[in-house]
Amino acid sequence: MSAPKKVVLAYSGGLDTSIILKWLQTEYGCEVVTFTADLGQGEELEPARAKAELLGIKPENIYIEDVREEFVRDFVNPMFRANALYEGQYLLGTSIARPLISKRLVEIAEETGADAIAHGATGKGNDQVRFELAAYALNPDIKVIAPWRLWDLTSRTKLIEFAEQHQIPIAKNKRGEAPFSVDANLLHTSSEGRVLEDPAEEAPDYVLQRITRPEDAPDAPEMVEITFEKGDAVAIDGEAMSPATILTKLNELGGKHGIGILDLVENRFVGMKSRGIYETPGGTILLEAHRGIEQITLDSGSGHLKDSLMPRYAELIYNGFWFSPEREMLQAAIDKSQERVSGTVRLKLYKGSVRTVARWSEQSLYSEAHVTFEEDAGAYDQTDAQGFIRLNALRLKLLATRKRRG
Amino acid sequence: MSAPKKVVLAYSGGLDTSIILKWLQTEYGCEVVTFTADLGQGEELEPARAKAELLGIKPENIYIEDVREEFVRDFVNPMFRANALYEGQYLLGTSIARPLISKRLVEIAEETGADAIAHGATGKGNDQVRFELAAYALNPDIKVIAPWRLWDLTSRTKLIEFAEQHQIPIAKNKRGEAPFSVDANLLHTSSEGRVLEDPAEEAPDYVLQRITRPEDAPDAPEMVEITFEKGDAVAIDGEAMSPATILTKLNELGGKHGIGILDLVENRFVGMKSRGIYETPGGTILLEAHRGIEQITLDSGSGHLKDSLMPRYAELIYNGFWFSPEREMLQAAIDKSQERVSGTVRLKLYKGSVRTVARWSEQSLYSEAHVTFEEDAGAYDQTDAQGFIRLNALRLKLLATRKRRG
Amino acid sequence: MSAPKKVVLAYSGGLDTSIILKWLQTEYGCEVVTFTADLGQGEELEPARAKAELLGIKPENIYIEDVREEFVRDFVNPMFRANALYEGQYLLGTSIARPLISKRLVEIAEETGADAIAHGATGKGNDQVRFELAAYALNPDIKVIAPWRLWDLTSRTKLIEFAEQHQIPIAKNKRGEAPFSVDANLLHTSSEGRVLEDPAEEAPDYVLQRITRPEDAPDAPEMVEITFEKGDAVAIDGEAMSPATILTKLNELGGKHGIGILDLVENRFVGMKSRGIYETPGGTILLEAHRGIEQITLDSGSGHLKDSLMPRYAELIYNGFWFSPEREMLQAAIDKSQERVSGTVRLKLYKGSVRTVARWSEQSLYSEAHVTFEEDAGAYDQTDAQGFIRLNALRLKLLATRKRRG
Amino acid sequence: MSAPKKVVLAYSGGLDTSIILKWLQTEYGCEVVTFTADLGQGEELEPARAKAELLGIKPENIYIEDVREEFVRDFVNPMFRANALYEGQYLLGTSIARPLISKRLVEIAEETGADAIAHGATGKGNDQVRFELAAYALNPDIKVIAPWRLWDLTSRTKLIEFAEQHQIPIAKNKRGEAPFSVDANLLHTSSEGRVLEDPAEEAPDYVLQRITRPEDAPDAPEMVEITFEKGDAVAIDGEAMSPATILTKLNELGGKHGIGILDLVENRFVGMKSRGIYETPGGTILLEAHRGIEQITLDSGSGHLKDSLMPRYAELIYNGFWFSPEREMLQAAIDKSQERVSGTVRLKLYKGSVRTVARWSEQSLYSEAHVTFEEDAGAYDQTDAQGFIRLNALRLKLLATRKRRG
Repeated sequence: MSAPKKVVLAYSGGLDTSIILKWLQTEYGCEVVTFTADLGQGEELEPARAKAELLGIKPENIYIEDVREEFVRDFVNPMFRANALYEGQYLLGTSIARPLISKRLVEIAEETGADAIAHGATGKGNDQVRFELAAYALNPDIKVIAPWRLWDLTSRTKLIEFAEQHQIPIAKNKRGEAPFSVDANLLHTSSEGRVLEDPAEEAPDYVLQRITRPEDAPDAPEMVEITFEKGDAVAIDGEAMSPATILTKLNELGGKHGIGILDLVENRFVGMKSRGIYETPGGTILLEAHRGIEQITLDSGSGHLKDSLMPRYAELIYNGFWFSPEREMLQAAIDKSQERVSGTVRLKLYKGSVRTVARWSEQSLYSEAHVTFEEDAGAYDQTDAQGFIRLNALRLKLLATRKRRG
Repeated sequence: MSAPKKVVLAYSGGLDTSIILKWLQTEYGCEVVTFTADLGQGEELEPARAKAELLGIKPENIYIEDVREEFVRDFVNPMFRANALYEGQYLLGTSIARPLISKRLVEIAEETGADAIAHGATGKGNDQVRFELAAYALNPDIKVIAPWRLWDLTSRTKLIEFAEQHQIPIAKNKRGEAPFSVDANLLHTSSEGRVLEDPAEEAPDYVLQRITRPEDAPDAPEMVEITFEKGDAVAIDGEAMSPATILTKLNELGGKHGIGILDLVENRFVGMKSRGIYETPGGTILLEAHRGIEQITLDSGSGHLKDSLMPRYAELIYNGFWFSPEREMLQAAIDKSQERVSGTVRLKLYKGSVRTVARWSEQSLYSEAHVTFEEDAGAYDQTDAQGFIRLNALRLKLLATRKRRG
Repeated sequence: MSAPKKVVLAYSGGLDTSIILKWLQTEYGCEVVTFTADLGQGEELEPARAKAELLGIKPENIYIEDVREEFVRDFVNPMFRANALYEGQYLLGTSIARPLISKRLVEIAEETGADAIAHGATGKGNDQVRFELAAYALNPDIKVIAPWRLWDLTSRTKLIEFAEQHQIPIAKNKRGEAPFSVDANLLHTSSEGRVLEDPAEEAPDYVLQRITRPEDAPDAPEMVEITFEKGDAVAIDGEAMSPATILTKLNELGGKHGIGILDLVENRFVGMKSRGIYETPGGTILLEAHRGIEQITLDSGSGHLKDSLMPRYAELIYNGFWFSPEREMLQAAIDKSQERVSGTVRLKLYKGSVRTVARWSEQSLYSEAHVTFEEDAGAYDQTDAQGFIRLNALRLKLLATRKRRG
Repeated sequence: MSAPKKVVLAYSGGLDTSIILKWLQTEYGCEVVTFTADLGQGEELEPARAKAELLGIKPENIYIEDVREEFVRDFVNPMFRANALYEGQYLLGTSIARPLISKRLVEIAEETGADAIAHGATGKGNDQVRFELAAYALNPDIKVIAPWRLWDLTSRTKLIEFAEQHQIPIAKNKRGEAPFSVDANLLHTSSEGRVLEDPAEEAPDYVLQRITRPEDAPDAPEMVEITFEKGDAVAIDGEAMSPATILTKLNELGGKHGIGILDLVENRFVGMKSRGIYETPGGTILLEAHRGIEQITLDSGSGHLKDSLMPRYAELIYNGFWFSPEREMLQAAIDKSQERVSGTVRLKLYKGSVRTVARWSEQSLYSEAHVTFEEDAGAYDQTDAQGFIRLNALRLKLLATRKRRG
């Protein structure tokens, strides 16, 4: 790969990406464009602008954007239509944010005439894969620079030295190692590394970033009603809201009630296991609610097919294949199933748990006439069951007859 | 179907199966053998013996058995190896008990020379299917009698009349309709019908049979450690126990802490939706724990394959195909994966929720050497990631190039 | 079910459906509407009109339609996009025609104010299921009458007697039993029953209805080029044709060259096995050609996902669930994959076999630059393979390390 | 990676692996052990011994083995139980041989105290992946040397120069480029590269290595009967034979009758498409025969599950994951299904095509009593079909009712 001339950097404004910024400048002598996105990570973005300027980035090369609505509308919501869980438990909070960032990096590269993008993910993790697969899928000619795989700043000491040497400001609490590493966006906060590296050791309480410990949550349950249209949450307690507003509101509720803490050892795409503490307050509520509305609006054929496709869909997102034709194929199938997934679910939030307690919909397929223990006025003829069972049993009988033959 | 000469009846000792008993005698003039099983439903069995005798069953025709160990060892445990959840949420507590009952009914029929079996499931539900498919799969020539699909006792009034007419004792509280219908075994209790028939109405608290309301559960969390061998729980807090003892103990813990309540609208195999309240205290803990031990002992290849097979496996059990070759095929695959799923999980139980907080195993695949944020002494070469990503990206680049060609 | 007042009958004009027509009139005293479709079965339709009139059907109640284009465009083509094969071998020629017939029966019922439809499929086969599931999916209130499950005309003798009694004309060769039963449409001809009932006996040559025996096919191979657009065949040897014209032309070619004979024992949805001889000349060529164009226009992600969905898709069609939400979900995924499946395939036809020998497309993903044994000008960096393999191997190494630990 | 001290080389005796042998010696100064396997590729092995000796390999370091029986028994046969086809068409002839070679390389390394193995696969293909994943799965500490990814002998000229410089004998016809590259074993011969690189160009006839052109095959069909036990072919025309003997015999038959030619563009695991001509004469017959015996001995539950697992199973083998837990899980499921796949199939071989024409088995599930068009003596009650259809239709009716509600 020839040296890049102009690089769009995914820039948080923090120490690490500031070091990368400077390293790109010194290593390649290239122009750097910074892209800082508000994905709901809960940090001010303007300091990133100031810091980029301080590091010599031209104002027109500083991109700061609030992408929260796009994030929820085009990434989080489609994913939740699938009830996606990676390895049965993980709501994919980090995974789903990466393709959006790459998409904007590539778009900005094209707008600014940059020939490369750069990210701050290490060589051991999934995020490098997600950033790069998305970028290549959107622009096959883009160069991707992953400094952590390239440089020799392989210890905290060396990083700090580099920063000092290049007049990069270092916040006091950043000189030492953080006790663990954090990633956050509107959907979730993940914590991993260092004090969390031994999966036999319980995570200390101070790891939690945004969810109240269940023990400290309110003593009274709280009810919430979520309304869906075509598989997406569109209102809370009857009030219509934008996608990001809904997720923000659910995060508040979940965080308050201790909902959405997951301590997981998962399989990374690059081959090793890692342990993370995930906080997904709103997402945990949303999954339960979406399951709740599907209970009455999806038939078994759609629902069971969805369930069987889900693990693969989740794996694709986890592995970084959001912008792949197979994810789009699965999405087409899933979206097809959601055309009438509309209605309202009531949930009970209490000290770490969320449960559907009621659901109703104009699109409901639930037929009290059929299921009732009372007289059903001919809706269902119980004698039909005999033929149904007999024909389902026919091959089993033939198998049993063979077995008895020996 | 010619009239049966001798029928083995799944007999609970309750009013409904007593009516069936008498109806079989009067309708067919046939000899009746009763089979009453202790599946952990929490009822005394000896009254069933007395009642059967009262209804004229010969002592040698009364079978009363404690099948709890067999139930957990040969049915519940294999199913939990799969992390089976029907429609993403239901732990299959009723479904998994039916094949065992049918197996014993068929075996007793063969021992006693009976040509038929009978059950008390209605023509609207799944249980008739499960009983009958299992029976036919085990004995292709057995007759199955399902009185609820045959007789004209279609209202409570008619049933009571029949009982009175035939001197069947009626407990006081059985004269009227129960407000809902209950099924129980060691794995779960289900409640459905009548006051629960409207899924938009919250279930009243009095529906709960064995789980404390989370609000009434202890204010202090409790930790429990479950040890697995080859996928099955074998010890609690270091103490080895039999399969049924473990599940009993976990039921106590879960019940105490409000864990395992599910309010579900599900799709029955016979085509309609139904709503049930399921209480699965021990099973809910067990699923979480099994997931926890798999986190460190299963690799991604095994785990992801298991996850993709699970929905079909769960559907087979739900639909009554336990004794089918395809369930056995899936079981062979699942059991193969469990050979090293051994180790211990620590879980936190608190007011309705259960969470894995630590897990350890001599069979662990977790490699701190590989995943560490610290210096890894060459365990992992970060530059490998570049080639890994590039080849994974190759087809995406070719796709993107084509798209750009137009 | 109350007696029908007006019935739309799927009417071939043959003896069996004429008997049904008369039986409906006599059994229910109802008005009968006949629907006779040209699905490419190769029979004149006008005799059906004359015969219907003779049996007392009012002219306005006689529907005769050429649905060949709709059949191929809306049913056959979508199915071939999936490369659908039931049980690995069967091209679903009968299965795919049934939903179209039911669709028109239901539509005509609604146009004519009929409350029921009727078909001539027996109670042992798949077609009854396909007709009825499709009808109920399109009109939940329609009545379906299946005379073969209802009447007592259970032998050839009784049928002939009924026909004679009701002045139904009987062709000479219809008095006795046919040596086997035939169904045909533009996609295929199936033969089953009687002389074919023993799967250990070879089918006699006279069973073949439309395909030349390979031994009698031309001694010289013939080449044909099929052009696809978005997954559908649109031209043969460069000449654009309508969907039905293409299939007709391919049938001629395949029939001439002995292509598309299948002797199969399959599993019916109703539980037993049956043996059939299927002749699918054009379809067999089309499947090979479609696979051929997909080879260069689908990437592995799309292709492998399609392959994994196909068995379920084929099973749905076989079982009669064309008009089901899960078939539509799968179709959405499949159609998504076909957006660039355009280009041309050259095939060689010779004495029973068809083989792709060349294929080309403006949408090709084949990159000679990448794959070449020659110098590739940097298109592919072979050292990338090392990292790719190492990270794919990482979990296998961890597994092996564990195994060596014992 | 530190330099290897002793390397086991997969050695064919040909020019390329002789160059590798010498290169290993000169590059690393290491001891080389050669392993030459008879996998049925149809070449004498003793010349490889002479050549190895000539190149300075100690006699005790020369391993020459006939592994044909192991190849068919432990690799080919298990794979054919699955009816494995990669991308719907490819019988995996190359893929399935690689893990066996790696297994022996690793075993010999352990026997001889070697710390590394080496292979002659290039950096663009699948074989490098297959060799290396298998090796790492069997010995996590083994070093794997892939000279084609390491050296600078990147052109034919340089290779020849290196050979001349090191006194490696060069057969006359090896000085120039071969017009295409060939790999062969008992299961298949593949040809690819150079004259075959344009998938729009037909392959010239001279590419065929072991199959007669269909046009040149005998004018008379030939029948063959293959007997299976538990899914594996065990006899031909009633004569019991060893696994490799059976495949050899079927290769003769298939080769003679022009059966098993495939011209394919496939997706390599490393990301690009490649085109190959595959000749799999015996394997093509075997697949058809295995399907034929499964038709009567597998029930639909087993068969459909197998079909749905097959694409993943085939992909695993293609990608090199033979020695992976997920392949073993799938194998456990598949093998479970084969317990009664025993019986005999008669096939007709004629000018490029093979067709099942009859099959019989003591394990047959085919029930003429159930399927017959004649009177069935009560084996099947046609009225059962009504209930079967109605309950299968119930959810479709509820969906249709909802749709009509709007």
